[in-house]
Amino acid sequence: MAEIKRTVLLTDHPWPDVELEQALTEAAGHAFVAGPAKAQAESQIEALVARTDPSAILTCWAPVSRRAIEAPTGLAVVSRIGVGLDNIDVPAATRRGTWVTNVPDYCVGEVSDHAIALLLSSLRGVTSADRDVKAAGWHIPTYQAPRISELTVAVVGYGRIGRETARKLRAFGCRVLVNGPHIAQAGIGEEIADRRAVQQQADAIILHAPLVPETRAMIDMQFIAGCARQPLIVNVSRGGLIDNAALEAALDTGAIRGAALDVVDGEPDPPSSLLEHPRVVVTPHIAYRSVESMTELRRRACEEALRVLAGEQPHSPCNNPRPSPK
Amino acid sequence: MAEIKRTVLLTDHPWPDVELEQALTEAAGHAFVAGPAKAQAESQIEALVARTDPSAILTCWAPVSRRAIEAPTGLAVVSRIGVGLDNIDVPAATRRGTWVTNVPDYCVGEVSDHAIALLLSSLRGVTSADRDVKAAGWHIPTYQAPRISELTVAVVGYGRIGRETARKLRAFGCRVLVNGPHIAQAGIGEEIADRRAVQQQADAIILHAPLVPETRAMIDMQFIAGCARQPLIVNVSRGGLIDNAALEAALDTGAIRGAALDVVDGEPDPPSSLLEHPRVVVTPHIAYRSVESMTELRRRACEEALRVLAGEQPHSPCNNPRPSPK
Repeated sequence: MAEIKRTVLLTDHPWPDVELEQALTEAAGHAFVAGPAKAQAESQIEALVARTDPSAILTCWAPVSRRAIEAPTGLAVVSRIGVGLDNIDVPAATRRGTWVTNVPDYCVGEVSDHAIALLLSSLRGVTSADRDVKAAGWHIPTYQAPRISELTVAVVGYGRIGRETARKLRAFGCRVLVNGPHIAQAGIGEEIADRRAVQQQADAIILHAPLVPETRAMIDMQFIAGCARQPLIVNVSRGGLIDNAALEAALDTGAIRGAALDVVDGEPDPPSSLLEHPRVVVTPHIAYRSVESMTELRRRACEEALRVLAGEQPHSPCNNPRPSPK
Repeated sequence: MAEIKRTVLLTDHPWPDVELEQALTEAAGHAFVAGPAKAQAESQIEALVARTDPSAILTCWAPVSRRAIEAPTGLAVVSRIGVGLDNIDVPAATRRGTWVTNVPDYCVGEVSDHAIALLLSSLRGVTSADRDVKAAGWHIPTYQAPRISELTVAVVGYGRIGRETARKLRAFGCRVLVNGPHIAQAGIGEEIADRRAVQQQADAIILHAPLVPETRAMIDMQFIAGCARQPLIVNVSRGGLIDNAALEAALDTGAIRGAALDVVDGEPDPPSSLLEHPRVVVTPHIAYRSVESMTELRRRACEEALRVLAGEQPHSPCNNPRPSPK
């Protein structure tokens, strides 16, 4: 295929090599440029874009600002290597006719497995017991686990991942509440619940909601104050869903029985008092990761960018930069 | 009911109080004697029995030897406060006409939940990541998780608990092998597998087998040498199923990807090198525990002993001390 050779910029890559991205890009006849592994700040990304003039930006965690989007001479696509879009100025892309794409379903199984792993690990006391035995030898812990089949677990956010988590929870016999803005129908054995019902009835709350203005700090002092059953809070979505200070206060007062967090507001430098809290199980934003999901993610994000450069429609568009005339 | 007042001896109680046992026993018109919370050695239990002359022995972990069984003037029942019988000399009890009973199903949900918790916690890297973040702050771990839906998991021991674990595993989409001496029929989506197939195909092996002479050290150097896929070993049954030295060697060489152990041979003082191993997730024999299961266990074990003292047939006999004539 005779194409103009253009530049694909990978802003950041929280994995050691860029062989897969480079090979796919060069096989399509384009030039490949990679930024550093760790995501840089907005201004550094803007400088990197200005220097390399990309036609496609592949980004994992690095902020892709309005300036970064408006600077290139011809930016066809910003391809998120992931699901969430909170690090991309989508309206700015839409305005200048640039596609924004993501890879919505590469890690559905991984994230829902991780949510269940965090839930069970916390409720069964696995992580805390391992910590205690490694520190102080074999002894019966004081923690008293609840019988899981008698718990009510709420899944907040009922998209692809939330539905998977709810389905897996059913195997454990617990009562499953599902909560979200537009749930037409719940799965078998699941109950649609509003915020108030979640607060009053849930023994554990799993957050699978996206981070948007309406969900920012949805778990705050007010929410927790309305909780009746000292719920465990599990977050595998975005740190910004939780107000850290409110969470830490609730851990200390016992208003919640614990927290299991794969994401924490302030990443990659969240408050150490929260990370080190004995009633917090923490993993460093790895829920989406598996050997298989990472290869699938990198390949599909890259293919999406190359598809747009080849003049085709993306498979997972997240905006509509070319409204049809009418 | 007019009964002779007899003595019920509780040999040990790994929970802080004995109120429930004492109340039930005294309500039935018998005398109640409790040994210390922590299980004592065989000779100490024998001395305790000789001193108290019980008609019923309630035991959790303490060894109830031939001498302890033969010493009392009229021992009607040894009631295990649990499932396994490896701490009771059952043949000696049968010979002298003493019932041995257990509580077979009070913790089926708990143990299978714990097995899944250990499996997911290990495979998703939850416990190791929490350990790393608490020690060294937020950073991406080097551990690479496998995609769980693409794994083959073997459940070895297909009794009440094994069947529950196999069923729950199916919700995660993995291939489930089940192994045991007399499996008539496996559940939907499960495959009956022999020892060789388990070795060759399993990415994780969950032990739910009882400890009997045929299963002692079933996971030894020879077994591990025949494993093709570096399986994770999960043990929620009895420590004696695994040869500790073979396990530790396999962890060090990478012949197995890790171990998640709720039971370890040598409890309550198992080798610290195993407990502290970075590729071992350990919980101190708590799989059977929940607030609900402990109350159910204590109540039912006590009721079983009192039932026999009242001249009734036990609900969960583990021997047949009164063979029918003929």
